[in-house]
Amino acid sequence: MPPSRVTLVEVGPRDGLQNEAAPVSTADKIELIRRLAATGLTLIEAGSFVSPRWVPQMADTAEVLAALDFDGPVRYPVLTPNLHGFDAARAAGVRDIAVFAAASEAFSRRNINCSIAESLERFQPVVEAARTAGIRVRGYVSCVLGCPYQGEVAPEAVADVAARLSDMGCEQISLGDTIGRGTPEATRRLIGTVAARVPMERLAGHFHDTWGMAAANVYAAWREGVATFDASVGGLGGCPYARGASGNVATEDLVHLFAGLGVDTGVDLVSLVETAVFICERLGRSPVSKVAKAVLASQAYDVRE
Amino acid sequence: MPPSRVTLVEVGPRDGLQNEAAPVSTADKIELIRRLAATGLTLIEAGSFVSPRWVPQMADTAEVLAALDFDGPVRYPVLTPNLHGFDAARAAGVRDIAVFAAASEAFSRRNINCSIAESLERFQPVVEAARTAGIRVRGYVSCVLGCPYQGEVAPEAVADVAARLSDMGCEQISLGDTIGRGTPEATRRLIGTVAARVPMERLAGHFHDTWGMAAANVYAAWREGVATFDASVGGLGGCPYARGASGNVATEDLVHLFAGLGVDTGVDLVSLVETAVFICERLGRSPVSKVAKAVLASQAYDVRE
Repeated sequence: MPPSRVTLVEVGPRDGLQNEAAPVSTADKIELIRRLAATGLTLIEAGSFVSPRWVPQMADTAEVLAALDFDGPVRYPVLTPNLHGFDAARAAGVRDIAVFAAASEAFSRRNINCSIAESLERFQPVVEAARTAGIRVRGYVSCVLGCPYQGEVAPEAVADVAARLSDMGCEQISLGDTIGRGTPEATRRLIGTVAARVPMERLAGHFHDTWGMAAANVYAAWREGVATFDASVGGLGGCPYARGASGNVATEDLVHLFAGLGVDTGVDLVSLVETAVFICERLGRSPVSKVAKAVLASQAYDVRE
Repeated sequence: MPPSRVTLVEVGPRDGLQNEAAPVSTADKIELIRRLAATGLTLIEAGSFVSPRWVPQMADTAEVLAALDFDGPVRYPVLTPNLHGFDAARAAGVRDIAVFAAASEAFSRRNINCSIAESLERFQPVVEAARTAGIRVRGYVSCVLGCPYQGEVAPEAVADVAARLSDMGCEQISLGDTIGRGTPEATRRLIGTVAARVPMERLAGHFHDTWGMAAANVYAAWREGVATFDASVGGLGGCPYARGASGNVATEDLVHLFAGLGVDTGVDLVSLVETAVFICERLGRSPVSKVAKAVLASQAYDVRE
C-alpha cells in the first residue's frame, strides 16, 4: 500500500539558493524560512557549513541559524561535510545535519574531489559525533538515476552507498536524481533495489524536474512505499548541469500531486505559492513551476470572473 | 501488462495553433506538418472545418490539406463538428475525422452551445456519413478530470459519453483533461471506469500539463493499458482557461517519458525538439517544455565540453 501520509523536506533555502546566481540577503533568507515554516512544512534545510570559497551563497549560514528556533516543531537540517562544519553546526544549536555522497565515482571525484569510499570514510566521524550528541543525520546520495559525467548508474551501486550510510547511522537516506534523467519505471526498480538493503521508512526521494519527470517519478516512488520527498519552493536552484534548465522539483508541485492522491502533506498550497513569489521576486524572476503559474493564473481568473 | 508500443497523436497543428494568439502562415503550417511527419509521427491532426468566425486560426484548413498526401503512411485527422464541415473534409480527401464532445454539461453549453445529448445527436449523422465513406472517426471527450465551470466531473459521466461515441461508430475515444487538474490516481480510476464500457484499445489519453501532472497521468494511464496519447509539439496551445499557463502536454515530453519506460513511439526526439524550436520561433517565443529545454541545454553543454 502506498503511504497515506507523506513528509516533504524543503531544500530551497540551502540546495536551492546555493545554485542561484543572484545573491539573497541574510534577512531575506530568514524571512523565506519563516514563511516556509508558516505553510506547514516541518523539515526545512536551512544552510550549509562548507568553505565560503566553494559555496559563497552559504557563507552566512551561522547568522541565518541564529534566527531559528531549534526547540520548536520545525526541524532545520544543515549540511556539514566534515567535523569542522559539524562543530560549527553544533555550536549553532542544530538538531539535524546532513552529509552528501554520490552513487557515481565520476561525480564523487569531480564534485567532492575524492572517491565514494573516501567520502564515506570522511563522513564516519561526523556521523559518529552527531549520534553521540543526539543529532539526527540525513545522508544524501546523488546521481541515483544517472550521472552527468559517467552516464548510467547501476541501482546496486546506489543500494551499496545507501546501505553504508544507513549502517553508519544515517537515519534517513535521500536518493537524488541529480540530473533528472529518471523515468518512473527506472525509479520503481531503483526503489525496489535499495529497499532490499535499507528499510523503506528510511528512504527519501529527491527528484529533479530537468526533464519534466519529477512528479511521475515521485508518484512511482510513493507507490513503492516511499513516504518522504525533498523539494524546493518555486523550483529554486535550477540545474547546474544544464544551463537554463530546471533542477529540484518545486515543493508546490508535490503538494498539489499529493493533494490529488488524497495524501496529507500538511502544507498550505496557496501560502506556499505566495512564498515562491516572494523569494523569486528577490531573485528577479517569476516562479517556474507549473503549479505556481496555475495557482496564480486561476487566482487572476477567479478575480476576472 | 502496460502496452509495449504506444502511438502518439500529434495535435499541435490543430488543437495547438488554434489556441495560439500569434498568426501562423499557411506555408508555415504545411512546413510544420511536413517536419512532424519526418520525426516519425504517424497521426497528425491537420486542421478543422469550423466557422472561421469562431476559429479564425483554422480558416486556411483546406489550403493546408491540399498540400498533404492522404495516401501515404501518415494519417491526418481533421475536426468536423457538423455535416457541412464533413463535406468540406471529404472534398479535401481526408481519411480521418474527429468530433468534439464534453463530459461536463456546463462546458458543453458554454463551449459548443448545446447540451451533451444534443451534441451527440448532431454528431450522429456526421459519424454515419464518415463510416459510409470509409472514413475513420475519433471522438474527443473534454473535461474528463474536471471542468472550468462546474468543477468535479464523475468518471461515470465520462464513461457514458465515451460509450455513446463508441457505439455511434467512433473508432477511438480521446479522453481530455482539458484543465489539467487530473492526478495519477484519479486518472487510474477514470481509465478503469471508462474501460469497463469501451474496449481499452479504443481509448486515447489527452492530458494537459497546466498543473505539471501530464507525464505522471500518462504514466498512470499507460500502466492501466492505454496505448494512444495525444500531445502537442512544443506544448503548442497554452491553456485557454488559465492565462499564461500550459495546456497540451508537449509531444517531446511523452517521447522522452516512453523512451525511459522502454516503450517504442517511433519518434525521433531531437528532430521533434528542432521542430518545436521551428514553430515556436514563428510564434516569437521559445519552446516551454522541460524536455525541449533540457535537450537544447544538453546540446549546448555537449558543445561547451
